[in-house]
Formats: sequence, structure tokens, C-alpha cells
Amino acid sequence: MSQPGTPIGATTWVIADGYIPPTSTGPEPAMTSHDSVCMLNAGDVDANIELHIYLTDAEPLGPYRLQIGARRAFHQRFNDLDDPEPIPIDTDYCCVIRSSVPIVAQHTRLDSRQAANGLMTTIAHPVPDH
Amino acid sequence: MSQPGTPIGATTWVIADGYIPPTSTGPEPAMTSHDSVCMLNAGDVDANIELHIYLTDAEPLGPYRLQIGARRAFHQRFNDLDDPEPIPIDTDYCCVIRSSVPIVAQHTRLDSRQAANGLMTTIAHPVPDH
Amino acid sequence: MSQPGTPIGATTWVIADGYIPPTSTGPEPAMTSHDSVCMLNAGDVDANIELHIYLTDAEPLGPYRLQIGARRAFHQRFNDLDDPEPIPIDTDYCCVIRSSVPIVAQHTRLDSRQAANGLMTTIAHPVPDH
Amino acid sequence: MSQPGTPIGATTWVIADGYIPPTSTGPEPAMTSHDSVCMLNAGDVDANIELHIYLTDAEPLGPYRLQIGARRAFHQRFNDLDDPEPIPIDTDYCCVIRSSVPIVAQHTRLDSRQAANGLMTTIAHPVPDH
Repeated sequence: MSQPGTPIGATTWVIADGYIPPTSTGPEPAMTSHDSVCMLNAGDVDANIELHIYLTDAEPLGPYRLQIGARRAFHQRFNDLDDPEPIPIDTDYCCVIRSSVPIVAQHTRLDSRQAANGLMTTIAHPVPDH
Repeated sequence: MSQPGTPIGATTWVIADGYIPPTSTGPEPAMTSHDSVCMLNAGDVDANIELHIYLTDAEPLGPYRLQIGARRAFHQRFNDLDDPEPIPIDTDYCCVIRSSVPIVAQHTRLDSRQAANGLMTTIAHPVPDH
Repeated sequence: MSQPGTPIGATTWVIADGYIPPTSTGPEPAMTSHDSVCMLNAGDVDANIELHIYLTDAEPLGPYRLQIGARRAFHQRFNDLDDPEPIPIDTDYCCVIRSSVPIVAQHTRLDSRQAANGLMTTIAHPVPDH
Repeated sequence: MSQPGTPIGATTWVIADGYIPPTSTGPEPAMTSHDSVCMLNAGDVDANIELHIYLTDAEPLGPYRLQIGARRAFHQRFNDLDDPEPIPIDTDYCCVIRSSVPIVAQHTRLDSRQAANGLMTTIAHPVPDH
């Protein structure tokens, strides 16, 4: 059994179905349609994260930089990223997540375009370290 | 082909998108919004489980202790854990699951904040044993 | 790049969050609430499948036996299994899938207890062959 | 930490629960029921993709050929494939995705047969290269 404080996961993760629905039903911000990456840094060292956003018809956007403290959860809506630039809504994208230390990443979308929200999630694809 | 009674899975698993929706629509407890970890102990030895809950702005909660008998399924709503303390609702978290023997873990959320329930699931992230 | 006819996947797979919702909204059988295992036998040899159903408070049920032809898809609703006995509805379970040849398995639930259906899916957990 | 431009993923991926719902609610094409494979080619070389569609009662369809540019996202609705032939709707299938270079693949369905859409997603099953 591994011990608390041990780093867990991988340093590169991929989300292939990125999409921010353009409309929403219900109270903001809870029911605003959103696409999120949820990350755990279980280790005892802060994680420096870089996200790159891949598009269908243009070069990748980014890096978007985040920091996650030691032993901390961090859930980031793609909707809320704006540095170096906002991620276009209603647009297909993919995301590569790179971290200075091992993390775990999960992709979740809440889609409230219609009257009741749809939800989807998957653990992202971990890339083995070499 | 492996045989019944063989331990299956890993001893450490991670859920990165933990969240208990704060409201519900429909009859309790079936349609109460909930976040769950569903586990299988396929082996012939009981499993002693420890959950740690990681938060955005504070040190991890836990351990929450569970026991799963040999050859048994166990589905646990995070909503129902209260020892050593309840998990805060409407709050982002991550969960690390550690077991004394190999298990398999799957994460599922039912969100009934709006009129029809949304559902999401993923096999949790297994951490290889060293 | 692998070639068509090559066996793909693993011979043991696990679903940890098994559950057949007890009620449904909408026309049968399409919108009947169901829990399914969807399998691919991509190889050139028929697959003999055995499912075991693990419960919270009793010994496992099964084996449930299925056969999947070479180069065939097979989507099985757990609701429809009745040999050696039906799987109880509104009851937590886990499922271990064992195959004579490598397959790929995915778990999907359609839950139409409320007015619009919820959907969830995950690739099942593959157990490496030794 | 891996570098941008590095190929990421695997050259063979599997989706086991393929299904195109036959009806839809809401404005086309956004809310049209669809089944999709979302792919990332993170490398610096174009990817040549072949999809084979496996059925329950007939030999596989395909190959369906796609090309994904270097450093590009590509989300493909199965509904929109028609060469060499359309994929039958309201029919169970599985899909094997093969690429000339490593990619990452994710499976997503939007089901709007009922009044509010259901959503499901999973990273597809990667087949290790030998």
C-alpha cells in the first residue's frame, strides 16, 4: 500500500474531446456549461502545470500555466482560462497537460444547453514517463 | 483465463474529479445527487480500505476506513462518509483509495440538480504496485 | 500499425459499478433503463466468455456464458441475462468478464428513471495477462 | 516533462460501445444525436488513420480513411462517414482505429432521443505497440 505524500500518476496527460458548449440553462456559475480538467497533486512538492490546446485548423494555443500546491486538488474550467488568450467556445479541441511532478488528471463536461444537464467524465490518457 | 478467487486490480486508485452536488430533484435516496466509489474485491481475502480526500485549500481529510469482504462488491457514496468527518458538499475534491489487497475502483456521479438526472462514470486511475 | 484479424485486448476485464435501474421512462426496449457490457472480438477465433456477478452480501452469481464470433461486436444488456439466474435489479454489483481469447470491453448504462435519459460509459478495467 | 511536438499515444485504439441513436431532439447539427471519435495528433508528422467498424452479424466495414495534420485535433462523427458506405444507425458496433503515427482517441456520444440530451465519454482502449 503506497503512503500519503508519495507522488502519484504521470507527468503528461491527454484529453482528446475538448469542447465548451456555447449556451447554458440554469443558474450561473454552477449550471453554466463547462469543460474541466480536474487534477490531483498527491505529492509533497508543488506542481507547475502547462496546458497546450490543439485545434483543428490552426497551431496549438498556450502554454496556459497553473500551479498546484503539494497535497492539493485543483479543478480548472477551460472556460475560465484567458492567459495567453481565451479558449474559443463551440470549437473542437484537444488538450495536453504537462506537470513538473506526477499528477492525476480527469476530464469532465457539464452540458446544460438543453433543459436538464448532461454530464460526462473520463480519466485522461496518461503518457508513461521514459 | 484467470480463475475466480484470484485477486484482481491494484492497491492504489485515484479519482480526480470529486464533487457532491448540493441539491437534488426526485425521491430520496435513489435520486439524491451523489458521488460514489464502486469497488470489487475479487480475491479470497478481506480488503482493508483507506480513503484520503484532497481539497483545494486545506490539508487532506481522512483516512476514512472501509472493509470489503472476500469476493464482494461494495459501492460507497461519498455523501454518506462521516468518520472522521463529513466530506463537504458543493466542494471540489480528489480521492486516493488504498487497499490491503488488489481491488478495482470505478467513480460514478448522479447529478439531479436539474429536472432529469445526469450521470457520469469512469474507471478510476490505477497506480501500479512497485 | 496492427493488422485486421489480430486479437486485440485482454482476456479478463472488470466493471465495478454495476446497477440495473428499477424503472424507466419512454418506449421499450430502446429507452428501457439498462446496464450493458459491450465487447469486441477482433481476432479470427471465436471467443468463449464467462461473466461472474459479485454482490454486496452474497457469493458471486454465474458463470453466465456467451459466445462471440470471430471479427464480431457483441453488446449484452445485463438485464437480459437469465441463465443460470436473472441479475437482481436495483442492486449494487460488480462484474468480471473472462474470455478464451483477447477482447475489449466497455461498460455503459442508460438510466431513464427520470424524464430524460442519463448516460454513462467507461472502458472496463483490463487485467494484464501473465 | 515531454516536449510539444513529441508524438503521444498509441497507433491502435478500440471503442467497444458504438451506437448511433436513430432520433434527435433540438436544433441540428449541434443537438443531433451522434457518436464520435475525437483524436489528437500531437506529433510533427501527419497521421493516416483507418477505421474498421465491427458488427454483430456481418463482416467488418471499412477501412474508412482519415488524415490528421501534425499538431492537430480532429473530432469525427461516425454519423458523417460515408466512404466506403454509411455506418448503419440504431445498430450496435465496435470500432478499431489504426494510425500511421501515435495518436490519442476518445469516444463520446450525445443522445438527444429524449427531451434533454444525455452525454457519455471515455478514453478509448489503447493497444500497446510491440
